[in-house]
Amino acid sequence: MKRPTIADVARRAGVSKGAVSYALNGQPGVSEATRQRILAIAAEIGFNPSSAARALSGSTAEAVGLALRRPARTLGIEPFFMELISGVEAELSARSYALTLQVVSDQDAELAVYRRWWGERRVDGVLVCDLRVDDRRVPALEELGLPAVVIGGPRGTGALASVWVDDAAALVETVEYLYALGHRRIARVGGLPDLLHTAVRTAAFTEVCDRLGLAGAATVSSDYTGEEGARATRRLLSSASRPTAVIYDNDVMAIAGLSVAQEMGLAVPGDLSIVAWDDSPLCQLVHPPLTALSRDIPAYGAHAARQLLAVIGGAQGTTVQDEAAHLTPRGSTAPPRPR
Amino acid sequence: MKRPTIADVARRAGVSKGAVSYALNGQPGVSEATRQRILAIAAEIGFNPSSAARALSGSTAEAVGLALRRPARTLGIEPFFMELISGVEAELSARSYALTLQVVSDQDAELAVYRRWWGERRVDGVLVCDLRVDDRRVPALEELGLPAVVIGGPRGTGALASVWVDDAAALVETVEYLYALGHRRIARVGGLPDLLHTAVRTAAFTEVCDRLGLAGAATVSSDYTGEEGARATRRLLSSASRPTAVIYDNDVMAIAGLSVAQEMGLAVPGDLSIVAWDDSPLCQLVHPPLTALSRDIPAYGAHAARQLLAVIGGAQGTTVQDEAAHLTPRGSTAPPRPR
Repeated sequence: MKRPTIADVARRAGVSKGAVSYALNGQPGVSEATRQRILAIAAEIGFNPSSAARALSGSTAEAVGLALRRPARTLGIEPFFMELISGVEAELSARSYALTLQVVSDQDAELAVYRRWWGERRVDGVLVCDLRVDDRRVPALEELGLPAVVIGGPRGTGALASVWVDDAAALVETVEYLYALGHRRIARVGGLPDLLHTAVRTAAFTEVCDRLGLAGAATVSSDYTGEEGARATRRLLSSASRPTAVIYDNDVMAIAGLSVAQEMGLAVPGDLSIVAWDDSPLCQLVHPPLTALSRDIPAYGAHAARQLLAVIGGAQGTTVQDEAAHLTPRGSTAPPRPR
Repeated sequence: MKRPTIADVARRAGVSKGAVSYALNGQPGVSEATRQRILAIAAEIGFNPSSAARALSGSTAEAVGLALRRPARTLGIEPFFMELISGVEAELSARSYALTLQVVSDQDAELAVYRRWWGERRVDGVLVCDLRVDDRRVPALEELGLPAVVIGGPRGTGALASVWVDDAAALVETVEYLYALGHRRIARVGGLPDLLHTAVRTAAFTEVCDRLGLAGAATVSSDYTGEEGARATRRLLSSASRPTAVIYDNDVMAIAGLSVAQEMGLAVPGDLSIVAWDDSPLCQLVHPPLTALSRDIPAYGAHAARQLLAVIGGAQGTTVQDEAAHLTPRGSTAPPRPR
C-alpha cells in the first residue's frame, strides 16, 4: 500500500540510491545492464517516472488535498466549508501551497482519491473532514503513510494528527443558558446522524437534559439544508407540546426555522427562542439577529493547515484542541412568554 | 514564456523526439554523448524532469486550476463562489479531474501562479473569474498558451474561450418590472466597481433609468459584504428622497438591506421593495422571501468546466452564452404604498 520510494528500488536492485538516480536520469555512473535492471524493478514495484523525478529532485507537490464527500450541489449552501477552506487557503497561500479539492460520492471513491494523490505525489498531505463513527479512512490513511490531519475528534482519529473542538461543552452551555431563561421544553434539530460530531452533540444534549429533568427533550435528525431544517421545525412547532426553544446544528437550518416561526405566526423570541450553531455572518443579517454558537471557522481551518504543514515537514502529529464555540446571545433568545 | 516541450529539446539537439525520450528515460537507443547533450539542452531551456516525465508518458496533470483574488476571509460569506465551485467540481469529478484552488492577493501573484502551474504542469488548464476592465490576465494567458476559459465577458476576453451571461438584460427586466409596479425612485447597491460585470450592470441601470425618465436613480458602490450592504442601505433610506425599491448586486447585501429596513421600522414590501441578485437558497430562508434574479450558478460552473475540458482536449475555444438570470418575484416586491 505504501508509495514506493527510491530506497525501495535501491534495496531490491542491491545498489545505492545514487545509482538509481543515475539510472533513472540517464546519467553516466551505472552500466547499461544495471540501468536496465533498475528500470525494470522501478516499473515492477510501481515507482513511476514522474514521482521518481520529483523524489529525485527532492521537490514536493506543494499542494494539500481536501476530499469532500457531500453532494456537490449542496456544498454551496453551507457557509461552513467555504469558511473552513478560506482559512486553510489563507495559511497555504502564505507558504505558496495550493489546495487540491475533489468532491467524492462515497468513502471508496475518497480512499481511491487518496491512493492516487499519494501514489502520483500530487499532494504532500490531506485534510480529513466529516469524521464518521468508525471511520474507515483513518486506518486506510495510516496504512498509506500519507501525511494527514483530521478536522474533528478527539476520539476515532487513530495515530493521525487532529484538530478538534469540544462540541459537548458548547451544547451544555447552551442548554443551561436556555434553562436559566426559564425554558423547560427544549428541542434540537441535529445534523447528519452518522457524523461523529453529531453523535457527540446528541449524547451531550440527552445527558444535560436528563440532568436538568427536561422531559421529552428530543433531537430531530436533519441534513443541514434549509428545506429539511424548515420541515423539522414545522413538525416540532405543530406538536401538542411544542418547544419554547430550539437549538439548530447549523445556521442555515436556524434561519429556515426562524422563517417557519414567522410564517406560523409565532413571535421570535416571545413564543420561540432560537439558537444557531456556526455563527456565520448570516446570523446577523436576519431580524431578529440569531443567538449563536460562535467560533472562528477560518481560524480552525488555518490551524488544521498549519498542523498539516508541520506533519509534512516531518513533525510528529498531535491531537490539538481548538477553542470551543461560545454562546453569543442576540435577539432570538429570551424568557418564554407564558401561554 | 511558453512551456518548453519535448519537441523544443529535439529541435535544438537535432534529434528525434524518440531520441529525447530514450535519453531522458535512460533507455538504450542513443549514444552516451548524445544523451549528455540532450540532457544539457533540456536543462538549459528549462524542460524539467517531472514535466518531462509527464510529457513523455503522455499523462496530463488531470487537474484544473482556479485562482481566486478575494480576501480569503470574505470568500466564506459569498454563496456565489462555493456554488460555482460545486458546479465545476460536479463536472470535474465525473472525469476524475481535481480542482486546484489558490487564493491570491493581487494580479501579479495570480499571474505568477499561472506560470508556475503551467511550467510545472500542475494543471492542464485554468478557469478565470472576476474579469476586470482591461484585464491583464487575458494577454498573459494567451502568451503562456495555458488552456483557459474565462467565466464572464463577452467583451475583454481576447482569444480565450469564455462562458458569459447577459447581466444587462436581467437588470433591464428588473427595472421595468419595478417601474410597472409603480416605483419611480429606484436605487441600486452595486458590487466591486472594477469588475467588468459590475460596469456592465451599472451602464445598463443608468441607461434604462434614463429611458424611463427616472430622475436621481443612482448606483451606490459596495463590496458584496453584508456590512457594506447594510451601510449603503442605511444611507439610501435616510436620504430625503429615499427610494421605494432597491436592487442589490448579490443576495448577502439584499438580506442585510432587508434587516436594515426592519430595524428602521420600514415595512418590506410596503415601504420598500427589495430585489436580490444571485438567488441562493438564502433568499427563501428570510421573511418575506426575496424577489431575486435567479440563475443556476452550479450549472454555470459546470458549463465552464465542460468547455475547459474541451479546450484541454484540443477543441477550439469559443464564446458561449449561458442562460441569463430571470426574475423570480416573491414577497419582497409590491407596488409602493402611498406616503
